[in-house]
Amino acid sequence: MRVAIFRRAHFNAAHRLYNPDWTYDKNLEVFGICTSPNFHGHNYEIEVKVVGEVDPLTGMVINLKTLSELIKTEIEDRFDHKNLNLDTDEFRDLNPTAENICFVIWKILSEKLESKYDVTVRLYETPRNYVEYPA
Amino acid sequence: MRVAIFRRAHFNAAHRLYNPDWTYDKNLEVFGICTSPNFHGHNYEIEVKVVGEVDPLTGMVINLKTLSELIKTEIEDRFDHKNLNLDTDEFRDLNPTAENICFVIWKILSEKLESKYDVTVRLYETPRNYVEYPA
Amino acid sequence: MRVAIFRRAHFNAAHRLYNPDWTYDKNLEVFGICTSPNFHGHNYEIEVKVVGEVDPLTGMVINLKTLSELIKTEIEDRFDHKNLNLDTDEFRDLNPTAENICFVIWKILSEKLESKYDVTVRLYETPRNYVEYPA
Amino acid sequence: MRVAIFRRAHFNAAHRLYNPDWTYDKNLEVFGICTSPNFHGHNYEIEVKVVGEVDPLTGMVINLKTLSELIKTEIEDRFDHKNLNLDTDEFRDLNPTAENICFVIWKILSEKLESKYDVTVRLYETPRNYVEYPA
Amino acid sequence: MRVAIFRRAHFNAAHRLYNPDWTYDKNLEVFGICTSPNFHGHNYEIEVKVVGEVDPLTGMVINLKTLSELIKTEIEDRFDHKNLNLDTDEFRDLNPTAENICFVIWKILSEKLESKYDVTVRLYETPRNYVEYPA
Amino acid sequence: MRVAIFRRAHFNAAHRLYNPDWTYDKNLEVFGICTSPNFHGHNYEIEVKVVGEVDPLTGMVINLKTLSELIKTEIEDRFDHKNLNLDTDEFRDLNPTAENICFVIWKILSEKLESKYDVTVRLYETPRNYVEYPA
Repeated sequence: MRVAIFRRAHFNAAHRLYNPDWTYDKNLEVFGICTSPNFHGHNYEIEVKVVGEVDPLTGMVINLKTLSELIKTEIEDRFDHKNLNLDTDEFRDLNPTAENICFVIWKILSEKLESKYDVTVRLYETPRNYVEYPA
Repeated sequence: MRVAIFRRAHFNAAHRLYNPDWTYDKNLEVFGICTSPNFHGHNYEIEVKVVGEVDPLTGMVINLKTLSELIKTEIEDRFDHKNLNLDTDEFRDLNPTAENICFVIWKILSEKLESKYDVTVRLYETPRNYVEYPA
Repeated sequence: MRVAIFRRAHFNAAHRLYNPDWTYDKNLEVFGICTSPNFHGHNYEIEVKVVGEVDPLTGMVINLKTLSELIKTEIEDRFDHKNLNLDTDEFRDLNPTAENICFVIWKILSEKLESKYDVTVRLYETPRNYVEYPA
Repeated sequence: MRVAIFRRAHFNAAHRLYNPDWTYDKNLEVFGICTSPNFHGHNYEIEVKVVGEVDPLTGMVINLKTLSELIKTEIEDRFDHKNLNLDTDEFRDLNPTAENICFVIWKILSEKLESKYDVTVRLYETPRNYVEYPA
Repeated sequence: MRVAIFRRAHFNAAHRLYNPDWTYDKNLEVFGICTSPNFHGHNYEIEVKVVGEVDPLTGMVINLKTLSELIKTEIEDRFDHKNLNLDTDEFRDLNPTAENICFVIWKILSEKLESKYDVTVRLYETPRNYVEYPA
Repeated sequence: MRVAIFRRAHFNAAHRLYNPDWTYDKNLEVFGICTSPNFHGHNYEIEVKVVGEVDPLTGMVINLKTLSELIKTEIEDRFDHKNLNLDTDEFRDLNPTAENICFVIWKILSEKLESKYDVTVRLYETPRNYVEYPA
């Protein structure tokens, strides 16, 4: 009996979209105000989906305490109240678009969770703009 | 690296459910108060999901500005503050159920977006009733 | 011990904004697309606030069952799946702006509730546009 | 033309997580405060997804009235304002984790809906913790 | 410059409505299924509003860290995953209606916060039913 | 007949909390991670409440188009995708706490709206932390 379990979490961060190989005008043309040099920010909301077999002894796919602590330690503590471009190793050389942030979070969590689980991450940059990996 | 990007938008419209080949009593039996002759209305909320490869130069599946403008021009401007049954070409001869509206929106957007993208549309008629195409 | 109790309900209706003493151009200038002749519609959400003393025998300001049934009978049944301009006595000669709808709902409920209660009504036309009476 | 239609509903119930084959200390270690002996509770929110062909006569996958009444009769009336562990046949011998509740709801609804429909149930225990079956 | 600051928190608890001076039939007549003997439960959501002068050195009415820790220690730790009727001193002899729970929370927080602050508590029993004290 | 009309809007910005008269350690002690040097950010959501008499010719307190364009021009265009500390005149020398941002927005809008209106601004820094001025 395979069930999906979802856990939501959030972090507040600053970022800007920027390709260092382009001129500022080219960045402005592609990224618009999102490339604004002094950064802007978001309340990022993440939804982590873990699919697995239900353990008949516990009735659970994964202990929610384990999952929520993993998200807190690996994602919230890493990114909350940070400038993604300046303060994190992950986005020093990677453009922090929603797509890339979502993939990075998925990669971090997937490597920490047992391989028997299928993991999907959805990242809300705003309530109207969000991404999901894998698609 | 395939990622899904989601964009939400909304429009407010009037409609009624009605099959012109049926008597009013038959329409009432099937559609209930939704066939009320003088129309009722909804705040329709749409979620457009676009799946594609992330462009390594931009870090994006599709430019969100492009996508949100397309939704504005093709969907919001077409349906917002309209009577779907009387004011639109799409539903003059097609019953504007949530299922049909969702399919029509998907068709319009799919034809305008590059064929490399997979498009899914979710349409909320109310926060408790919604549909998605393709399923 | 005076406490406020709130109850939410909703109805879906069509309407248009229109002043019959004005030309269509004047209506269009003032009301914009909201005066569109064939109507549009909304998922109206209402919040009814009732302030009163807590009855020490029940621990309640008012029985929520009484309140929710009153809202169902007097407001939802009256306005749900209706065209406010054409199908209701209340708005046949009164422009169904959010302000006027809110006042009408307040008046109906206030007259049905015991005079010991203070009643306030908030009406959401959309999640971003709403009104409250009395202010 | 296959479309998914979604309907949300909710019920308020008490429960505790508990494996009768374990000591209390073992239950506490695995389930934490969720095993608290006198029960706690939730506003459970359910989302039922039904996938099927759109009937060209009605423009609908399934009549929403049929679906919402089925959910009311089979799920809400059965579980609302109940103690899942003590008051229900389904969870007298089955640990009422979100995973198990979701599966039970899916099983009840699937057996009542025509076999041409594909059914998925999502169960929100809180706005941040939820599950879905089948995954 | 007086500003209101709001903080939201939540706890999950079981309860039943019950007046021990009444027969079960009288309790059932007044409280309906909320008096169900084996308890039911809710995701209680609380909104604490604190009004005070903005300190020009900090730009804050009250340090949000102080406020959120107070709510955690005094309210969440006290009521989360509890049976309000059986497990708490506050509701052993007080009917845990939303009105009474809201007043009790207000009383606990008001006594812990400096007297220069005006405190209001809103308690959501469900997203559609909530109360506020003082009114 | 005095009615309150509400309009919501939003902007995404970076900020940090900081008192230049204090040492970094003192800033850290008071503001915690909110004083992080490279900024963090939020999806700020604002609710503007305008109270006034309903004009019997229009049925409106204020034309919502006027109000929403004023908010767009004066608030969204000014603060969206900005670093509040570095990019705005308002917060170059004023600590951008939620309290101060809320007051600044209220002041800008109050001066632009006719004096017959009473204006209140609520600012959500996150869905769980928000402020309102005047209180």
